[in-house]
Amino acid sequence: MKRILDAIESPADLKHLDDVDLDILAREIREQIIDTTSKNGGHVASSLGAVEIILAVHSLIDSPKDRFVFDVGHQAYAHKLVTGRRDVFDTLRMLGGISGFPKPSESPHDVHPSGHASDSLSIALGLAKARELRGTDEKIVALIGDAALSGGMAFEALNTIGQLQLPIVIILNDNEMSISRNVGALVRHLGALRSSARYRQARDSSQELLEESGMLGRAFLEFGRNAKDSLKQFFVPDAMLFEQLGILCTPPIDGHDISDLKSILRTALDADGPVLVHAVTKKGAGFAPAEADPVRFHGVGPFNRVDGSSWRKSATTRCYTDVFSEALVREARADERIVAITAGMRTGTGVERFSEEFPDRFVDVGIAEENAVGMAAGLALGGRKPVVAIYSTFLQRAFDQMIVNCALPSCDVVFAIDRAGLVGDDGPTHHGMFDLVYCRMIPNMKMLAPSNEAELVFALHTALNTPGPVAIRYPRGAGAGVEVPETSAMFACGKSREMREGDDVALLAFGDRVGAALQAAEMLADEGVDARVVDMRWVKPLDEEAIARAAETRLVVTIENGVVAGGAGSAVLEVLASRGLSAPVKLLGIPDQFVLHGKTDALLAELGLDASGIARTVRESL
Amino acid sequence: MKRILDAIESPADLKHLDDVDLDILAREIREQIIDTTSKNGGHVASSLGAVEIILAVHSLIDSPKDRFVFDVGHQAYAHKLVTGRRDVFDTLRMLGGISGFPKPSESPHDVHPSGHASDSLSIALGLAKARELRGTDEKIVALIGDAALSGGMAFEALNTIGQLQLPIVIILNDNEMSISRNVGALVRHLGALRSSARYRQARDSSQELLEESGMLGRAFLEFGRNAKDSLKQFFVPDAMLFEQLGILCTPPIDGHDISDLKSILRTALDADGPVLVHAVTKKGAGFAPAEADPVRFHGVGPFNRVDGSSWRKSATTRCYTDVFSEALVREARADERIVAITAGMRTGTGVERFSEEFPDRFVDVGIAEENAVGMAAGLALGGRKPVVAIYSTFLQRAFDQMIVNCALPSCDVVFAIDRAGLVGDDGPTHHGMFDLVYCRMIPNMKMLAPSNEAELVFALHTALNTPGPVAIRYPRGAGAGVEVPETSAMFACGKSREMREGDDVALLAFGDRVGAALQAAEMLADEGVDARVVDMRWVKPLDEEAIARAAETRLVVTIENGVVAGGAGSAVLEVLASRGLSAPVKLLGIPDQFVLHGKTDALLAELGLDASGIARTVRESL
Repeated sequence: MKRILDAIESPADLKHLDDVDLDILAREIREQIIDTTSKNGGHVASSLGAVEIILAVHSLIDSPKDRFVFDVGHQAYAHKLVTGRRDVFDTLRMLGGISGFPKPSESPHDVHPSGHASDSLSIALGLAKARELRGTDEKIVALIGDAALSGGMAFEALNTIGQLQLPIVIILNDNEMSISRNVGALVRHLGALRSSARYRQARDSSQELLEESGMLGRAFLEFGRNAKDSLKQFFVPDAMLFEQLGILCTPPIDGHDISDLKSILRTALDADGPVLVHAVTKKGAGFAPAEADPVRFHGVGPFNRVDGSSWRKSATTRCYTDVFSEALVREARADERIVAITAGMRTGTGVERFSEEFPDRFVDVGIAEENAVGMAAGLALGGRKPVVAIYSTFLQRAFDQMIVNCALPSCDVVFAIDRAGLVGDDGPTHHGMFDLVYCRMIPNMKMLAPSNEAELVFALHTALNTPGPVAIRYPRGAGAGVEVPETSAMFACGKSREMREGDDVALLAFGDRVGAALQAAEMLADEGVDARVVDMRWVKPLDEEAIARAAETRLVVTIENGVVAGGAGSAVLEVLASRGLSAPVKLLGIPDQFVLHGKTDALLAELGLDASGIARTVRESL
Repeated sequence: MKRILDAIESPADLKHLDDVDLDILAREIREQIIDTTSKNGGHVASSLGAVEIILAVHSLIDSPKDRFVFDVGHQAYAHKLVTGRRDVFDTLRMLGGISGFPKPSESPHDVHPSGHASDSLSIALGLAKARELRGTDEKIVALIGDAALSGGMAFEALNTIGQLQLPIVIILNDNEMSISRNVGALVRHLGALRSSARYRQARDSSQELLEESGMLGRAFLEFGRNAKDSLKQFFVPDAMLFEQLGILCTPPIDGHDISDLKSILRTALDADGPVLVHAVTKKGAGFAPAEADPVRFHGVGPFNRVDGSSWRKSATTRCYTDVFSEALVREARADERIVAITAGMRTGTGVERFSEEFPDRFVDVGIAEENAVGMAAGLALGGRKPVVAIYSTFLQRAFDQMIVNCALPSCDVVFAIDRAGLVGDDGPTHHGMFDLVYCRMIPNMKMLAPSNEAELVFALHTALNTPGPVAIRYPRGAGAGVEVPETSAMFACGKSREMREGDDVALLAFGDRVGAALQAAEMLADEGVDARVVDMRWVKPLDEEAIARAAETRLVVTIENGVVAGGAGSAVLEVLASRGLSAPVKLLGIPDQFVLHGKTDALLAELGLDASGIARTVRESL
């Protein structure tokens, strides 16, 4: 049977559908999302929750003339399906296929590469200001989740949006959970709104409310300089945070009711100032397993679409996050000063186990990296030992706090930088390419790059017992497969370990590239090239003696899973220069470009960072 | 006549003073601040505005056991005077003297190095959590200005403070202006509170209100789980933003009335949850010239203490900020797409002139760097040419937005990075040490480092006409003294200019270090060493040919006003390595340490980055 979806070539086609057809289309899209993600994996729960909102918006606006801005674009699958990418949707997140996030180079309907939370409002604000200056009249709609609202950047934008009073429709997709579960006073505030008599009334008799749209409409249209308090009062719930910032708000409405959504949105799109449409949705809506466990279905691998169970066999090697998770708990049992902090990534960073055993010593600040790192500094000043667990790419948000609040006063803060290096399917907004550089440039900061599971355990122990701020970076996914030690030990500060002897070339490898370097050395041995392999262990301070010894070989190769510009290899060059040593050095790492999505191993191979690539570089350089 | 101030050796001494004595002390402290800053320069207006608040707090708490956390510590001079630094106060901001900001290594009463706005609440929150875990009962007070509240980090912290409900006293020093003038919806909200009937009543009959302190006290003490709405209602103004985040608020009180302050604070300090004390103050209070022009007296050089006029003769060389200011206006006249954005630094970054001539094309988002850069990306996506003018050290707050929102989609955004390099008196929180690294590591980003006023004019023109994100970094203070050209021109991308021929050594200099390199070359010429001097002009892309030619001399020296780790010199090493060229290279720049405050020239000399230092390095290395 032909689906309505198969007739949708562009969002303009949605305008010909009535609300009943749109409801059918929503069901078809859900089926398609479940079908594709059950094979490719992906962000299931968020995308299922936003289907109706996306259809309602696209049936009213004229994209790409009008601009539909996504915040953390992992809710955008329905958007992709109705903007000309239905036929390639089965390549979702695959190498060479379409991205799991909005991507401007992929479609003119994708406004910006949305991958980091809380940025949509600033983008929409900039577009609105540009529109004012150009004198055009396109509509601007931003879709933001409740969790993303806790990010400071979103608040900063709301503040300016309230000031400039430019027409922007902000849709708050309020699904009561972030990647883990929502936290913070703001969320409680939203919860109070949802449970208020007014919301219950709105939900129970939303039709009644909408029938008064003449009045609603007038109120919206008069909003701005001419707004009458009495009218605003009619549909702005008391104690509404946004209203105080000068942003008109609707009462909470059912975000899965297309016809309600369209009624409210139609009015909001005509307003002459900023309007926030408060839509309440359910993550994973329409797929029972995702509704039941939205945390697992936030970002998930291939699954059985009947019951949602995972296809993936339990891996024989454990992932780094899991090893960290367990090691942290063990350290915390031995030292009551240890406190764990995360920023909306309780499950992803593995601190969930800690939070269960030590609920009092755990803080999840929500998507708010700046506060996470600032608070860690405060905890350290108060005599605690905070461990901040954040993904490499998101820690970029707290770069300044790492410098000023942690490193300048040399606070004892441990940064557990998960997802360091290429992360695979999620692509350029999520690769952790920069942490080696932005950590090593900071005075007083130390940095470890463990090369396997055991090294991670030791690195954590070392970091917790080293004064001042210490960062540990480790990659996404499975470890090297070595046994996880029962007890821990301290590393000597700034000392590497030689993994393989050899005097022809020296491979100075960092973190997860040590394994590839060892394999490369075996390949080279077959060709008669005797390669030394050094697990550098410390990015900072570097083992200067090991570097000096490396310079005595015919070729030094540095290998890191991060950008070359300013990275660990660059630090090796600085050591050689400062010691007046000259040696041919090849720096292997991520070149000066953003890296697309795809399987991590394939990406590393493409960049010449796997064993073959390393061996090839040696061959060509000798 | 002996002052009360002369008897204050520690804050404990304040407890023996009655309110009349404290008022006298406040006047003495004002005199002292005016006296010292009139000689040394400093942050006059903010510090004068916070005198009574500081005295009230210290007369009630027991620092350093209790913790008094400052936000942007330039209001802390009174704090320094009553915490044992009276006798060294005349060394304020001088090399080897006391810092202009709180500094933990200077005094146990200084909790953290507060120099970047909006961080005090996170620090206080961390301290409060640590207190809970340790089971101690010290008081925690944070002092934050209204301008700093617009920073996203402060909002993030408020969100968590509202959630955790730990006792913290937040004093909002509401003086109605940031460094320039305040902006944003939040500020309007505060303004509405101030002008509300409730505030007028509170101000007019604050005594009356305070007489009911039995009731107030009960309300505070019952705050938290047991708070009764009716009681809260009594003193929480309607529509109070903070109250919705779960933070109890006082009505606005007079921040210069020590006895009112003490009454409210005493009650707030006894509460078992977070309380915000809303104190209204006047910047520059007690010094007429500063009250009249608080922008000039935010941070000011030596002045005549009678009328506030500046001692400093009008400089013969213009400062970089001024040259940028004028060039930007000229560019904007020729290209209507140019838009200027700043983050609370309208005067400091020189965009004030632009804002006067093109008010519609100008946005000051307040202290909100993340939104400034995100909004710039939106403006670029909307076809405008945004120029974001922010100090190097504060742009660290928007590092992630530079990467994800600007560079990944390759938006045409120009970053005008003022105060790049060492900034002198303001010290470690304000030095712009890192921008060379954090810009050059970002793919798609280009970066220029003009070496004098004319070069800055050309660099701006070049940046505005180069696709993708382009950063320009220039230092604080006077230019090199060259004439500012009337017309502009494009630089060839990635091309340096040779300033002086020479084949013994090659000095590859970046930005303001070009002048010093030229002087060094003259010194060396007298000694028979023939030094080539290259103004590298572009940090990225680098002039690889010039670098290759430099490698043909006996010694390459790179010189930059920024950290060596990962900096421009490091980039030169990367080029040499990638081309397989070996040459002795010395990297001159800021070593791996935070740099104290002092005169910029003295600091540069100490680090060997002046002409003598460069010459010395050459001599020692040849």
